Amino acid sequence: MSSGVEAIKWVDNQLELLDQRLLPGQALYITCKDSTEVADAITQMVVRGAPAIGVSAAYGVVLAADAAFSEHQQAWKANIAEAIETLANSRPTAVNLFWALDRMQRVIDTLEDSSPPHQSLLDEAKNIHSEDIAANKQMGKLGAELMAASSDTPFSVITHCNTGSLATGGFGTALGVIRHGWDAKIIKHVYADETRPWLQGSRLTAWELQRDGISVTLNTDSAAAHIMKQGDVRWVVVGADRITANGDAANKIGTYSLAVLARYHGIKFMVVAPSSTVDMSLSSGDLIPIEERTGEELTSIKEVQLAPENIAAFNPVFDVTPAELIDAIVTEQGVVLNPTLDKMKALLG
Amino acid sequence: MSSGVEAIKWVDNQLELLDQRLLPGQALYITCKDSTEVADAITQMVVRGAPAIGVSAAYGVVLAADAAFSEHQQAWKANIAEAIETLANSRPTAVNLFWALDRMQRVIDTLEDSSPPHQSLLDEAKNIHSEDIAANKQMGKLGAELMAASSDTPFSVITHCNTGSLATGGFGTALGVIRHGWDAKIIKHVYADETRPWLQGSRLTAWELQRDGISVTLNTDSAAAHIMKQGDVRWVVVGADRITANGDAANKIGTYSLAVLARYHGIKFMVVAPSSTVDMSLSSGDLIPIEERTGEELTSIKEVQLAPENIAAFNPVFDVTPAELIDAIVTEQGVVLNPTLDKMKALLG
Repeated sequence: MSSGVEAIKWVDNQLELLDQRLLPGQALYITCKDSTEVADAITQMVVRGAPAIGVSAAYGVVLAADAAFSEHQQAWKANIAEAIETLANSRPTAVNLFWALDRMQRVIDTLEDSSPPHQSLLDEAKNIHSEDIAANKQMGKLGAELMAASSDTPFSVITHCNTGSLATGGFGTALGVIRHGWDAKIIKHVYADETRPWLQGSRLTAWELQRDGISVTLNTDSAAAHIMKQGDVRWVVVGADRITANGDAANKIGTYSLAVLARYHGIKFMVVAPSSTVDMSLSSGDLIPIEERTGEELTSIKEVQLAPENIAAFNPVFDVTPAELIDAIVTEQGVVLNPTLDKMKALLG
Repeated sequence: MSSGVEAIKWVDNQLELLDQRLLPGQALYITCKDSTEVADAITQMVVRGAPAIGVSAAYGVVLAADAAFSEHQQAWKANIAEAIETLANSRPTAVNLFWALDRMQRVIDTLEDSSPPHQSLLDEAKNIHSEDIAANKQMGKLGAELMAASSDTPFSVITHCNTGSLATGGFGTALGVIRHGWDAKIIKHVYADETRPWLQGSRLTAWELQRDGISVTLNTDSAAAHIMKQGDVRWVVVGADRITANGDAANKIGTYSLAVLARYHGIKFMVVAPSSTVDMSLSSGDLIPIEERTGEELTSIKEVQLAPENIAAFNPVFDVTPAELIDAIVTEQGVVLNPTLDKMKALLG
């Protein structure tokens, strides 16, 4: 089974990111030479997807440490805090970013002032990267097994946003489950929500699934209810940007809508995310900061104006799905069915 | 209160239609000189919206009769059937089209072979047009009264697609209710779904509401659930393309989704449509033909490609909301609360 495209590469001590703003028209990499460029790439969505943001930020810390050591030598630790803060402020909702920065900080805390920090930090960033890929593969297996156990006959699934190789260290979360499920012939078709406003579904998920030869059709986000009514969808499968201790899950805007619609239609709802997405420090999803991006993401596409000049748009780019609408949270550490605080603590606490 | 823009005009014995494909960037009228041009304008969505399609088709019959009489004199009736058939085949879902053609046919049946049919048919087309505007104003009043009775304090509403002056003979159905409700200070804000794929919300509704000075923000269709959760929306108000005898309503794709979401959030759901939208010949919404349009409506916008080449898209442009999710159907003849076959028959049968 394909692991998909390699969107994050460490080459010649620089970070190369596949520019996801240009896909599927162009597959171009941009090179980040310092941590500020990494932070900008995250904010501007050159790279997006909660796990991919975490991996990129980890490499960003390597670049920050290299620059700090080069300029300040033994005072490098005092001169890296601001760069890490800039990385932490690049986007607010996905917790993987903070999780990865914490892991890098813990390594920094063990290092001596006088030695070059490069290799230790690069090793940790590479660990974060390779562990994410391994976690994805494990989640793909667990999620597909859960799907297989739910049905004797092949069925269709709906997915939202992009959760594939592009959104992660590699392979994918929800898309990893889909890759496994397709391989096992339990998934026969994927309905990919186009995912307005950024069109991750049209531009990225369709592109990944097409490359893998998996049966896929695009649909407008608002057609999902109509598709569910037709009866051949058994699961909605999505990723997450942050999962709180009680099992609430923040994910791309429209996910909560799908969860309500799935429940109404008797369709199962699966959230697939590595344990780095789980934030046990927050008791519920109400506490997750929801990023609002510029209204221009709705009112224009490239040079094409889609709405009147000066119209206001409300553009929250995540929403929160309450645990009671989630049938399964799939992590690399195991599956939580009908999540509650106690079950989350037992597996992930 | 503004009646809004005049999208359908009869000028110098030709039909002038505001080209809704170009809004809001350009406000250009195209001239239809014969009924084929009217049918093409409907198919290509120069004019759209169930009532507006009906009015346009009625004028199309005038053009067809003028041409038939000019060419065939007393044999004009035998030579108009094909043109009417072409108009009937221009779009499948909205019943107002067939209703308007039926009304025109009934006038044709009363006319003599030897006299020019022009004036009688033009009178009927103008009646259809002016009656639609009057119906809209009455619906606006009835719908806003119903909203006012439901709340002591001003609230927000969500609307979908475009149901304003552009979609009707003039004034608007759901947008007519919004105009009345805004005027009465019971509606304080309108959330306009952008309405993919054709973006009637962004391009047309936002444009109409902005012209009227009504508080409006655009949102992605998939953000509606998140907005409902915030708690200041009390009603979803939409139009319809066909309402069946039991109170099921076909409308723009995404309407059914909103109805499920509204019920989940305890928000009321209002369908506003003239009695010409009601099709008592169909027992339920399952029998309504749902138009599927080309996938290119999803995969590109003007010259901008949004998805990989050769990706398939499933593009149903209407869906059906079952009566049990509808709190009120507002017509010019009165309001049906919690519609059932018996209630529909009592008011509209």
